[in-house]
Amino acid sequence: MPTRLSNYFLRTLRDVPSDAEVTSHILLVRAGYIRRQAPGIFAWLPLGLRVKAKIEAIVREEMAAAGAFEVHFPALLPKEPYEVTGRYEEYGPGMFRLSDRKDAGLVLAPTHEEVFTLLVKDLYSSYKDLPLTIYQIQDKYRDEARPRAGLLRGREFTMKDAYSFDATDAGLDASYQAQRDAYERIFQRLGLEYVIVKADAGAMGGSKSEEFLHPTPVGEDTFVRSAGGYAANVEAFTTIAPAPRSYENLTPAEVLDTPDTPTIQTLVDRANAAHPRPDGRLWTAADTLKNVVLALTHLDGTRELVAVGLPGDREVDMKRAEVAFAPAEIEPATDADFAKNPGLVKGYIGPWSPEGAVLGEKSSTGIRYLVDPRVSDGSGWITGSNVHGKHVFGLVAGRDFQADGTVEAAEVLAGDPAPDGSGPVELARGMEIGHVFQLGRKYAEALGLKVLDENGKLVTVTMGSYGIGVTRILAIIAELNNDDKGLIWPPAVAPFDVHVIATGKDPDIYAAAERVVADLEAQGLDVLFDDRPKVSPGVKFGDAELIGVPKIVIVGRGVVDGVVELWDRASGERTQVALDAVAASFG
Amino acid sequence: MPTRLSNYFLRTLRDVPSDAEVTSHILLVRAGYIRRQAPGIFAWLPLGLRVKAKIEAIVREEMAAAGAFEVHFPALLPKEPYEVTGRYEEYGPGMFRLSDRKDAGLVLAPTHEEVFTLLVKDLYSSYKDLPLTIYQIQDKYRDEARPRAGLLRGREFTMKDAYSFDATDAGLDASYQAQRDAYERIFQRLGLEYVIVKADAGAMGGSKSEEFLHPTPVGEDTFVRSAGGYAANVEAFTTIAPAPRSYENLTPAEVLDTPDTPTIQTLVDRANAAHPRPDGRLWTAADTLKNVVLALTHLDGTRELVAVGLPGDREVDMKRAEVAFAPAEIEPATDADFAKNPGLVKGYIGPWSPEGAVLGEKSSTGIRYLVDPRVSDGSGWITGSNVHGKHVFGLVAGRDFQADGTVEAAEVLAGDPAPDGSGPVELARGMEIGHVFQLGRKYAEALGLKVLDENGKLVTVTMGSYGIGVTRILAIIAELNNDDKGLIWPPAVAPFDVHVIATGKDPDIYAAAERVVADLEAQGLDVLFDDRPKVSPGVKFGDAELIGVPKIVIVGRGVVDGVVELWDRASGERTQVALDAVAASFG
Repeated sequence: MPTRLSNYFLRTLRDVPSDAEVTSHILLVRAGYIRRQAPGIFAWLPLGLRVKAKIEAIVREEMAAAGAFEVHFPALLPKEPYEVTGRYEEYGPGMFRLSDRKDAGLVLAPTHEEVFTLLVKDLYSSYKDLPLTIYQIQDKYRDEARPRAGLLRGREFTMKDAYSFDATDAGLDASYQAQRDAYERIFQRLGLEYVIVKADAGAMGGSKSEEFLHPTPVGEDTFVRSAGGYAANVEAFTTIAPAPRSYENLTPAEVLDTPDTPTIQTLVDRANAAHPRPDGRLWTAADTLKNVVLALTHLDGTRELVAVGLPGDREVDMKRAEVAFAPAEIEPATDADFAKNPGLVKGYIGPWSPEGAVLGEKSSTGIRYLVDPRVSDGSGWITGSNVHGKHVFGLVAGRDFQADGTVEAAEVLAGDPAPDGSGPVELARGMEIGHVFQLGRKYAEALGLKVLDENGKLVTVTMGSYGIGVTRILAIIAELNNDDKGLIWPPAVAPFDVHVIATGKDPDIYAAAERVVADLEAQGLDVLFDDRPKVSPGVKFGDAELIGVPKIVIVGRGVVDGVVELWDRASGERTQVALDAVAASFG
Repeated sequence: MPTRLSNYFLRTLRDVPSDAEVTSHILLVRAGYIRRQAPGIFAWLPLGLRVKAKIEAIVREEMAAAGAFEVHFPALLPKEPYEVTGRYEEYGPGMFRLSDRKDAGLVLAPTHEEVFTLLVKDLYSSYKDLPLTIYQIQDKYRDEARPRAGLLRGREFTMKDAYSFDATDAGLDASYQAQRDAYERIFQRLGLEYVIVKADAGAMGGSKSEEFLHPTPVGEDTFVRSAGGYAANVEAFTTIAPAPRSYENLTPAEVLDTPDTPTIQTLVDRANAAHPRPDGRLWTAADTLKNVVLALTHLDGTRELVAVGLPGDREVDMKRAEVAFAPAEIEPATDADFAKNPGLVKGYIGPWSPEGAVLGEKSSTGIRYLVDPRVSDGSGWITGSNVHGKHVFGLVAGRDFQADGTVEAAEVLAGDPAPDGSGPVELARGMEIGHVFQLGRKYAEALGLKVLDENGKLVTVTMGSYGIGVTRILAIIAELNNDDKGLIWPPAVAPFDVHVIATGKDPDIYAAAERVVADLEAQGLDVLFDDRPKVSPGVKFGDAELIGVPKIVIVGRGVVDGVVELWDRASGERTQVALDAVAASFG
């Protein structure tokens, strides 16, 4: 039976929803696919459910082809397994927590590593049971600080999450590759361009991780890639540290007057004007050592100041810094923090002062000092001397100051060398559409998942986890496939195969349209039939363009001549076809 | 592709799970359909998901046939709509509540009347848009005080909930009937015997309501039915009140000694011995008026004592009393309650004492006094006199004491007359498998859902709500279809159509089995193939019996003679069939 617009639960809207920021959100609401319930929480209407079901079917097919079995866990779970792995704490305010009537702690699971691990522990005991990959397609909840962009970053979303279990590292590699291959097939079938980039394993705590990003200028993730094939999420990019250099032949550091140099640029200008380089070249921002003080809030609530030293031509990239200092939360140090540390002179902060070491665990402030890998032993810098109006020139790392370690917190710039030697990188933006992790043994160890190996010895299982955001992908597809009239679904995920419109009021037209619909359905096609008798052709056409079924058949006055129009939603092209040949044209 | 047991995610278990109380729970866990995660919370394994999907498909087909459209709401919803209708309070501790990081109140929705109402309000505005019935199949959460019996009463469950919207009462009747008819078809297709009984609308606050009960001695609900066609949940049964009688010719009440009569039976015996009836008949328990004091806890937390007067041959039915006093919670009055009311003499409580009225709003205690409808005006009783060791005989309702009203709190007994005059009722037990409500205008009024009627006037929409517990039905089907070996699924919901077992180690047998499997699949049948090379036939047969696919094909040594065995799981019958004819026998 066709779906008839005369009684379908659908109301298209003219107005742009006031809270909608992105095209996919606007069009999915206007065309009657979703309705907002609360910030980041949506209801799915019949059209939306149909598209979602098509994406889920593709995911299920490729999971089955990859040998994964479907299971289903509740969203509501006891908190204890999450406490055992530490994620109950680490997730911070992003996880919804609640208690039941007996005060037992529960969570709305953000992901399900823990309970999948326990399920396998519960049922399996031998290496012969492995490899195993199981997955679910399930509604998840995360308490995002700023839910936005409609379905792109919601607090409720449907996710396919798969988990692999292997007895050996080689097994994990194979299971990981099988899921990675399945993801490539899924995105290819969905017509979604993707880049696979190295990713930081983050809160998942794994050893290897890659993200599937859809490259788009409006993406919220930045990634880098080299012509030689390197690709990484900017958070996972690593800097090539210069080799240590000898201190010999280096002149001693000297403190020089640099009044009125509140910025790196004024400092560089002043240095070139008043203190030219002995070798005659100009000082640049890359010769300066900038020191940024961050305040870390650790999971136990304690607050710690940390100074980051990096070349002055780069800013701290807060997303990279977040990853570097996770699970602590970070923010710039406040005036109150500086007030407690008079040894640090704002605008002139450096690791050293004429009175001795200022930054570092063994310094006068005791503030931990982490430097960019470029600040290698033997490198010399212009940097603050913690004396107002004065900088120190030729301060040499390892000779004049000691860092407590290195940190990957500086921004990545176009032209930086890829860590694998494949040449300079360029920067691009993308949206995350999938994520694969080699978790290793973290979860299995924490929860005691062991199996007997070939020699009868207990070995800890090694795991992977693999996620695709089903509703996020739907939104991205909508974001990519539209024009100023509405949505234009790729056939693989369109809510219907064909949208048949009967125009006018002539009963013969409606009778002809019924025959067209019957013919199309006989071919196994899903038909949306606009049979509304009192709606003008213009409104019907507008609705069809907004809804975005890729193929439209217009049955109108042409039926007296035995013809109808085929309308291609994407190209806008209309062609006449004989009434009897419509169905065959979809063959 | 068949599902091969050699690598399926399945582990059948010998042991009965320690927390399992009922057969369905035991077998579904042992056969690898579900695993418990927390009290009343389960994970679905691949076999279980398959059965669930089959039930859901039947429900979807019948919903579509009834003209209902599928949508999908999140489980996590803002609390405000539930506050507007009062259900946020009324649900008490049965609803999971939580807050987000901005302290906004959220609930895990126990049902979705409020947000469906708001969705329709959001999109529709005219009587021409109606009637409309929309539904979802969705995971729900309720914080049951005593989750038990596996899936039969869990804290997480999958439910089909539908909601109808009409502009007129006649429209609601039609929408209600369409859902009721669909429910009958669903239960018929599932092979589930059902009785439709009048039900109390309870917390839903509707005007008319019926339950679909599956009659079974182990059901947790009691219902009554008469030979004349009356059927009601015991909570919805109403008592026929005798007509008021004249007080004339009734002798005055008199207080008589009744020492050592702590129970109704001892009182009746003592009365017959010491105070025989003037007319010579024997006193019976039905001649006595028992008075039970209950403590009500109202939603605002206040505690109120209420006395219930009922014939001494009946107990208070706490479930009926719960409904009668809802949304207050009830419990028997405590010793502390009695200590505060010395006018009530335990064992001798009555509405009256020689000093005057004891129960009722205008009495010495001020305790509200509600009586069973049988305690009608002019009826005379033996009842407590609030003096230790003494009862009052011939105390006449309306003459000697005044009740504040009537209450349906007495137990229903077999032989009680049906309220519709269709004869005496019998009692039976059942399990609830579906529930249909005429909600009327309660939700639409509270949330402001109005449409323009034919005359351009705004009218409040009238609604129905209709629920089927998908996972509960699955458990009931399992509960009904099993033997001491395991499950026996009805074909309509079996996880597979055929279970093919290859026995022994002969490669020819496995090759023949592969051909049988291919033939069966070519017929469109879903096949579970036990191809495990190192598992004994006994274990394979045992697993097949436990898993419960209705049709089993055993491919063994008979293949040298070109025959295999068909094994009917339900009857246990095995018949030989030619290898080439197996698939045809499933035609």
